[in-house]
Amino acid sequence: MATQKQIQLAKRPEGMPSDEHFNFVETEVPSPNTGEVLLKTLYLTVDPYMRGRMTDAKSYVAPFQLDEPIDGGVIAEVIETQSEKFNKGDIVIGHLGWQEYSVAAEDNLRKIDPEAAPVSTHLGVLGMPGLTAYFGLLDIGQPKEGETVVVSGAAGAVGSVVGQIAKIKGCRVVGIAGSDEKVQYLTNTLGFDEGINYKTSNVYEALKSACPDGIDVYYENVGGEIGDAAFSLLNKFARIPVCGAISSYNKTEKDLGPRVQTKLIKSSALMQGFVVNDFAKRFQEGAEALGKWVKEGQLTYEETIVEGFERIPEAFIGLFEGKNLGKQIVKVAEPDIAVLPHN
Amino acid sequence: MATQKQIQLAKRPEGMPSDEHFNFVETEVPSPNTGEVLLKTLYLTVDPYMRGRMTDAKSYVAPFQLDEPIDGGVIAEVIETQSEKFNKGDIVIGHLGWQEYSVAAEDNLRKIDPEAAPVSTHLGVLGMPGLTAYFGLLDIGQPKEGETVVVSGAAGAVGSVVGQIAKIKGCRVVGIAGSDEKVQYLTNTLGFDEGINYKTSNVYEALKSACPDGIDVYYENVGGEIGDAAFSLLNKFARIPVCGAISSYNKTEKDLGPRVQTKLIKSSALMQGFVVNDFAKRFQEGAEALGKWVKEGQLTYEETIVEGFERIPEAFIGLFEGKNLGKQIVKVAEPDIAVLPHN
Repeated sequence: MATQKQIQLAKRPEGMPSDEHFNFVETEVPSPNTGEVLLKTLYLTVDPYMRGRMTDAKSYVAPFQLDEPIDGGVIAEVIETQSEKFNKGDIVIGHLGWQEYSVAAEDNLRKIDPEAAPVSTHLGVLGMPGLTAYFGLLDIGQPKEGETVVVSGAAGAVGSVVGQIAKIKGCRVVGIAGSDEKVQYLTNTLGFDEGINYKTSNVYEALKSACPDGIDVYYENVGGEIGDAAFSLLNKFARIPVCGAISSYNKTEKDLGPRVQTKLIKSSALMQGFVVNDFAKRFQEGAEALGKWVKEGQLTYEETIVEGFERIPEAFIGLFEGKNLGKQIVKVAEPDIAVLPHN
Repeated sequence: MATQKQIQLAKRPEGMPSDEHFNFVETEVPSPNTGEVLLKTLYLTVDPYMRGRMTDAKSYVAPFQLDEPIDGGVIAEVIETQSEKFNKGDIVIGHLGWQEYSVAAEDNLRKIDPEAAPVSTHLGVLGMPGLTAYFGLLDIGQPKEGETVVVSGAAGAVGSVVGQIAKIKGCRVVGIAGSDEKVQYLTNTLGFDEGINYKTSNVYEALKSACPDGIDVYYENVGGEIGDAAFSLLNKFARIPVCGAISSYNKTEKDLGPRVQTKLIKSSALMQGFVVNDFAKRFQEGAEALGKWVKEGQLTYEETIVEGFERIPEAFIGLFEGKNLGKQIVKVAEPDIAVLPHN
């Protein structure tokens, strides 16, 4: 009987996760029943929000269970089918375990077209991170032509799309990121107006100088002192889509900062937390807009691809060390049957 | 030549204001030119937001100037007129100095009807505080029948109106205030479902028990640890109108607390700062609704009236010590000509 590797949550981290929190387990390759398919994992995504699921706390998604496989977005190939909807060699996306092979019900999978774009983009610019950028910026941020949009985590999977959409909408765009290389990527490749390396700058002073007309939209990905600085430079009726606070996810001490109430009052500013699923009914609209901008060359993306199933924990931990430019993806295997012209 | 008393800002306070920050000055009673009237101050309002104007910082209203009269909402009687719009004995409301007599241009005054309601209500339930409650709760808070609304500073001029409107809208209403007397006023007189004395309770635990279904709307008047507690009990898609943060206004150290980003994300909550003037175009609508509810007996109000021009600083400072129940007003003088049937 064939076996495969699976990654389980071994214990719940306090602070930064490390190898000891992940358990590589040898399990049987399962068999599909009627209406199911057997899938070979090709690419999988590691995302900052997963850190929240490693903690056993009430949140917007259920926590991972101890000694169970971690799960998330996966691009896979159908290698055995008991479903009339899928053929061998089809490429699909689904929410699956961190394992080399999975069985999934046909209704939990969506077929993707490997001819149209690299299949990995469905984990990035055309997937959850792209949609998170799209709805958070446009629905909550409501950027208007000529306004100043600041985005933190700007070189990441979400932030890089946020800034580019803001440019498409005619805004002045300032991105905050964690290295000179990333800042150059923002201004040279993505067309941001200015970039700030938060590791080598006084962020408040740098923002003040990069935003001479103040901040109309601050797209929050990181929290901490970067958020604090942005909140001090808000224009009247500023909007703050709150997407993430990666700087706090591995904190073991309390995440204390200046309370925001007086800053919000002074500027009549709006701050709105969200998760992408709040917009689930409109994913089609978002995916079409993102796809069109990519096709037209208005929306560029970067993927940092680590190869090898064994390196999934390393890729995940790297997110919190700022190792990724754009979307962090793990390539697990080549397809058996399908041809991926763009990957 | 007649003289009068005027209160000027003597120096800018750090921390809690005290007598030394106010200067009583003897000045001439001015004379009106064409289009102006001479006014006798009858009632004036002291409000927490004025503390912000005593500081020389960028805010939503200009700071008071040193050695100039402090100003704010005043109910006054026309005692000499060079205006075709106003007669002697008219009662008007305007934004005037803290002084016994003022000259004002006719366009900066609005006539009020002393027969309809106590004239002092135009500084409270029918004035800025009532409108602040109305628009913050209904426009930002958007309470729905059956939802749980929590309001801090609940026995104050704004909070007491917020809670009553929420009751009118069919919500479960929990108020937070600073004495058992105030808490009893909330539940016995105003019809709140529960009241919490923050000085004798663990606010988080008390809120948790008073809000078994979580918090849908938190109307923020106070900030500090009370706000922190409320932010931890938000339901999905909760709304937080941010009206004030009185606990921070006299702080000399930094106002630090748990950063809110992760809490807003977990509940997809909206937090919006505002000042009543953001809704200036709709004051008529708000004043009509408030007046109707008062007339119908659905909206009750309390005024804490201190008598005497000399006691204005004391009344103002008392706001930060929680001395007022409902609207804090100073009665400066009786009218010379007019009759005020309700005051």
